[in-house]
Amino acid sequence: MTGDRRRCHGAVVPHPFSGRHARVAEAIGDAGVDALVVVNSSNIRYLTGFAGSAGVLVVTAGRLYLLADFRYSSAVARLVRDGVAPPALVPVSLEGSAGYDRRLAELVVAEGWSRVGFEDAHVSVQRARQWGELFAAAGTPAALVGVTDAVERPRLLKDAGELDTLREAGRLLSAVAVDVLEHVVRAGRTELEMAADIDWRVKRAGFEKPAFDTIVASGPNSALPHARPTDRRAEAGELVVVDFGGMLRGYAVDLTRTVGLGPVPDEARRIYEAVLEAQQAAIAAAGRPEVTTGEVDAAARDTLARHGLDGVFGHGTGHGLGLDVHEAPRLSRRSAEAPGTDRLEAGMVFTIEPGAYVEGTGGVRIEDDVVRLDGGCALLTDVPRAWRVIPV
Amino acid sequence: MTGDRRRCHGAVVPHPFSGRHARVAEAIGDAGVDALVVVNSSNIRYLTGFAGSAGVLVVTAGRLYLLADFRYSSAVARLVRDGVAPPALVPVSLEGSAGYDRRLAELVVAEGWSRVGFEDAHVSVQRARQWGELFAAAGTPAALVGVTDAVERPRLLKDAGELDTLREAGRLLSAVAVDVLEHVVRAGRTELEMAADIDWRVKRAGFEKPAFDTIVASGPNSALPHARPTDRRAEAGELVVVDFGGMLRGYAVDLTRTVGLGPVPDEARRIYEAVLEAQQAAIAAAGRPEVTTGEVDAAARDTLARHGLDGVFGHGTGHGLGLDVHEAPRLSRRSAEAPGTDRLEAGMVFTIEPGAYVEGTGGVRIEDDVVRLDGGCALLTDVPRAWRVIPV
Repeated sequence: MTGDRRRCHGAVVPHPFSGRHARVAEAIGDAGVDALVVVNSSNIRYLTGFAGSAGVLVVTAGRLYLLADFRYSSAVARLVRDGVAPPALVPVSLEGSAGYDRRLAELVVAEGWSRVGFEDAHVSVQRARQWGELFAAAGTPAALVGVTDAVERPRLLKDAGELDTLREAGRLLSAVAVDVLEHVVRAGRTELEMAADIDWRVKRAGFEKPAFDTIVASGPNSALPHARPTDRRAEAGELVVVDFGGMLRGYAVDLTRTVGLGPVPDEARRIYEAVLEAQQAAIAAAGRPEVTTGEVDAAARDTLARHGLDGVFGHGTGHGLGLDVHEAPRLSRRSAEAPGTDRLEAGMVFTIEPGAYVEGTGGVRIEDDVVRLDGGCALLTDVPRAWRVIPV
Repeated sequence: MTGDRRRCHGAVVPHPFSGRHARVAEAIGDAGVDALVVVNSSNIRYLTGFAGSAGVLVVTAGRLYLLADFRYSSAVARLVRDGVAPPALVPVSLEGSAGYDRRLAELVVAEGWSRVGFEDAHVSVQRARQWGELFAAAGTPAALVGVTDAVERPRLLKDAGELDTLREAGRLLSAVAVDVLEHVVRAGRTELEMAADIDWRVKRAGFEKPAFDTIVASGPNSALPHARPTDRRAEAGELVVVDFGGMLRGYAVDLTRTVGLGPVPDEARRIYEAVLEAQQAAIAAAGRPEVTTGEVDAAARDTLARHGLDGVFGHGTGHGLGLDVHEAPRLSRRSAEAPGTDRLEAGMVFTIEPGAYVEGTGGVRIEDDVVRLDGGCALLTDVPRAWRVIPV
């Protein structure tokens, strides 16, 4: 991702982000607007490489105007200098203006845009109303037009650079998982202690940070699909679910394993084998030609149903991974409600993570990350899945 | 926070959250709506104790309808059973319905509400439009009405239980800071290594998690006000800024110290003393009668100006702390633009964190947390502020 326009043997190689900009420019044309205001930080990063926590990007057919405040002016200058930012990027300083929204109104006036699109899934009702008022106060008759998923659509299909990052992240996270099962998960330790050690290992492995709040759920807590670590000590004979992830150069990977602390009751073991069978069925389905997200979900759900466990699998089979740890596509019963994301396409990256949560016995979840390829799929994470007992 | 209605000598003690509900109920009355739909997770937690990552709360004068999905049904049942949730809470299951927004429409129809308020700062343009469509499809003529800050206003003034938590969190974070300066920050270590160690100590001290992405910025990176830790090794003669926080029972505290790795250039030391003087001036201002947020900011800014450093202090002097790590009040030049939050009032909790960022020399920030009291203020964090050199 370095090198603005790299010359190889005299040829000009396009900037790796140029294709992204071109696809969003197409959506802008389709929406009939002169410019699109992007406020979602992952979408801004996707188009510019800028990773600040604040910022507003205005995309036109030919330019990417990046509004960033004092805290980020050095960071933006570095992006441009190092060629990480695409050549279409125009840094817009906030100095002398009264914040992002006034600066945006000034830009709309200066550029003479008459139809200004905005991300309707990310802009609040309050902010859209304030923009309207600021535009009027600035003397522009520009209309505000809600636009949906203009950047999320290209993000759905990862490009080569993104896939390289996700593959590397999957390998790193797998190595952390092996280490965690070997050295961190033990009877007698609290969930919080184990979670702190997992996060430390995630960071020491080279991730910027955990991708979400790490879950360590022992015994009865394992039956909570979204447990938070507590000061409960895991005990012999219990199941422990560890669910953690990492962000590498902005991209999220996510992995879950469930183990026994010494021998566990037969019913816990039976649930484990059923969930593993469901996961294998879903992974197999994800590689089939022309398969839909709902069919992958059904492969897991039907397997659990054959084991009498469909009533205790309340969440979806998986979610997309990328600059967000939860993004499109969703693999769930309700996948069909998200039009355009229903059929798996080469370049989609997602988790496959069926689970079963039985009060009294405990819960099991097994999660890996998968990339859909032309005519198949491949796992990004690689940690043994067979039933494992941690010696007590 | 346990005990639904605790009886002491025969008297019924109101639930600690009842006053919060009453204040929001008042705002609902003022807005002329039958119910307020709350989607912001911190606002939901403030009113119910529910800490899930998803959920929708509908507040009426007498009830708190909490919509939560499968993943959280056990957690909600526990809240009710343990008396953490206030008695007005009515759990609403999503089972059998198609997600939060349809269930909300069903509830609006079932209750016969005609004017439904929503948090206009937290609901996207897209979601508000979809609600309108779902309400119409469900056959209700209910109008949607944007409401601003109905829950944020009571959150601005912390109650006794919140202040206890924030005081405890401040003590814990101070102890972590002493430990970090003693054992973590050293020449020859990378910023990422130091950040991983800080986060581990934050968690082992009893915090649920860091309150935000920990900053460790060494040498030239210290001149970036929002630096991210990198694999750069800190070297002797440099400044290092460490800025980290923790969440304790949902509440955020936040602390920054800047130290030298061995002797630093005179100019770096001069900047440190100026920033420290600015911080002391702002803390003194925060305790003055009838003081405004803008006056506290000016106390820091004017001090830096006297040292020729006002041009390199680009951010505000502080921000509110509570269920969010950045909330009202803001202490900045633009504070006056947020009406109703301009004068400091007893029960407000906020950071005081002036800084100066000089390319070539480095940056300094010193941050503590403060509670405004009747006729004064008190520090929640207590770590030595005098210039400190880490032996190299």
